[in-house]
Amino acid sequence: MQRHPVGTTSMVDSVPLETAKAVIDAAEQRADEIDNPMVITVANSEGNLVAQHRMDGAWLASVDISRNKAYTAAALDMPTDELAEPTKPGESLYGLQNTNQGRMVIFGGGYPLERDGEVVGAIGVSGGEVAQDMDVAQSGVDKFDDLSS
Amino acid sequence: MQRHPVGTTSMVDSVPLETAKAVIDAAEQRADEIDNPMVITVANSEGNLVAQHRMDGAWLASVDISRNKAYTAAALDMPTDELAEPTKPGESLYGLQNTNQGRMVIFGGGYPLERDGEVVGAIGVSGGEVAQDMDVAQSGVDKFDDLSS
Amino acid sequence: MQRHPVGTTSMVDSVPLETAKAVIDAAEQRADEIDNPMVITVANSEGNLVAQHRMDGAWLASVDISRNKAYTAAALDMPTDELAEPTKPGESLYGLQNTNQGRMVIFGGGYPLERDGEVVGAIGVSGGEVAQDMDVAQSGVDKFDDLSS
Amino acid sequence: MQRHPVGTTSMVDSVPLETAKAVIDAAEQRADEIDNPMVITVANSEGNLVAQHRMDGAWLASVDISRNKAYTAAALDMPTDELAEPTKPGESLYGLQNTNQGRMVIFGGGYPLERDGEVVGAIGVSGGEVAQDMDVAQSGVDKFDDLSS
Repeated sequence: MQRHPVGTTSMVDSVPLETAKAVIDAAEQRADEIDNPMVITVANSEGNLVAQHRMDGAWLASVDISRNKAYTAAALDMPTDELAEPTKPGESLYGLQNTNQGRMVIFGGGYPLERDGEVVGAIGVSGGEVAQDMDVAQSGVDKFDDLSS
Repeated sequence: MQRHPVGTTSMVDSVPLETAKAVIDAAEQRADEIDNPMVITVANSEGNLVAQHRMDGAWLASVDISRNKAYTAAALDMPTDELAEPTKPGESLYGLQNTNQGRMVIFGGGYPLERDGEVVGAIGVSGGEVAQDMDVAQSGVDKFDDLSS
Repeated sequence: MQRHPVGTTSMVDSVPLETAKAVIDAAEQRADEIDNPMVITVANSEGNLVAQHRMDGAWLASVDISRNKAYTAAALDMPTDELAEPTKPGESLYGLQNTNQGRMVIFGGGYPLERDGEVVGAIGVSGGEVAQDMDVAQSGVDKFDDLSS
Repeated sequence: MQRHPVGTTSMVDSVPLETAKAVIDAAEQRADEIDNPMVITVANSEGNLVAQHRMDGAWLASVDISRNKAYTAAALDMPTDELAEPTKPGESLYGLQNTNQGRMVIFGGGYPLERDGEVVGAIGVSGGEVAQDMDVAQSGVDKFDDLSS
């Protein structure tokens, strides 16, 4: 997360609700294309929720997982799929998955949303196999990038 | 919550995502009219999230409160404002607010969404004074009733 | 909390660590003057910690209370002492104290930190009687205002 | 934790706030040198917070991890990096990471602060790769040792 010093205050970046809706819509369209209902969350750069949708038929478990994938990607400024390897037993971050009151998700489907190299929020998708979650989340990231360019 | 017997199974009523979006949109329009950003959640009849939006500038505290007003209304099949009186010290339900892992909200802004007399979901709104939360939530209920008629 | 639309992103204000240290130092000086050790926390506008100090001899309970007073003031954009009255049994926000996973503190000692009318963070002080907590916290607010002017 | 018998009471060792500030300052200087913003916590020998600073731009996830690395180092009287090996599946302490309500951190960056062979507190650092966290935390330990000699 980039902070912009402005005298005695600095800025924490966020995502406006209208942008979050557009990002989620794009992800929902992709989920429809691959015929797999998903739960999709957009959070701001401090990990707090902006918007969350549960598509009809999506897993109940995914409500929590989607939200926490977005939290994790925002809280660590990185895609959640990059956490699978270093958190394995014997690797450097083994145990990271037990921190943050169980909110750390260490498999794919969470991505930071970046503008001009700064993390301004994150998207988290859950509902299918990890490859599908990542595919649908990427559609949301692409939409965000389109809107930001 | 009404369950529909079908052989050995029954149905849990829910609100489709498209309906939830329309209900939230109606509430957001009302929130804009009274110039008070809100967090708005629609849950299904089992208290689980269908969709949640945090309008730009809405209180962080309202993310939790909105979600749990919807949970409470679904979990008890009643508007949350009806809980304020019976949970006062000395009254019959005093202590209810400490149950359900802190998810019970006992002030106004949560309403069941009903169809043909059955609770099929709930809406929870937080972000202003209680009267404003109830006003905005009622706009969502009205929209749901329009769509259901 | 004020958000600044910037194309597809918006800004949430925060408090730089150096500013937070200066604010806490001012509060500590006041606590020394009244001879009452305090725990003092500064949070950003999304309720997350920037800095926290526990003065020697301050109550253990105040570690949690100080942090959550800052959280509450940031999460509701208002001083925590304004919550005591409306959360009494029979009043409009009775039950607010049970929301947000027990993080809502409804007695004095938490204040938003504002710049140009926007909440950019919050201070939370605990360790004495409420009047003392408010006194010490106000010293921190005054310091922040001095630095911001 | 060493307790000093004094009649029917014993002492719990702690770190004065002024010492904690000096230790954190030293760690912040090292974090600046390696250009990696960190969250740094000093706890007393009972694992409770003395002081915590989040440097500008440090990960949100590190607020929790830093605090709990200090907790873990104090709670077990050992550096957290020594826990990685014995908590692997099949090893003697496998499962330790699930105890203490999720507060155990089993990767490097937490160290006890010792004086005359007694643990009097702990430091926890999070914000970079584990080797960086350990490097920055060691600067804090060195400062503490300088001040204690």
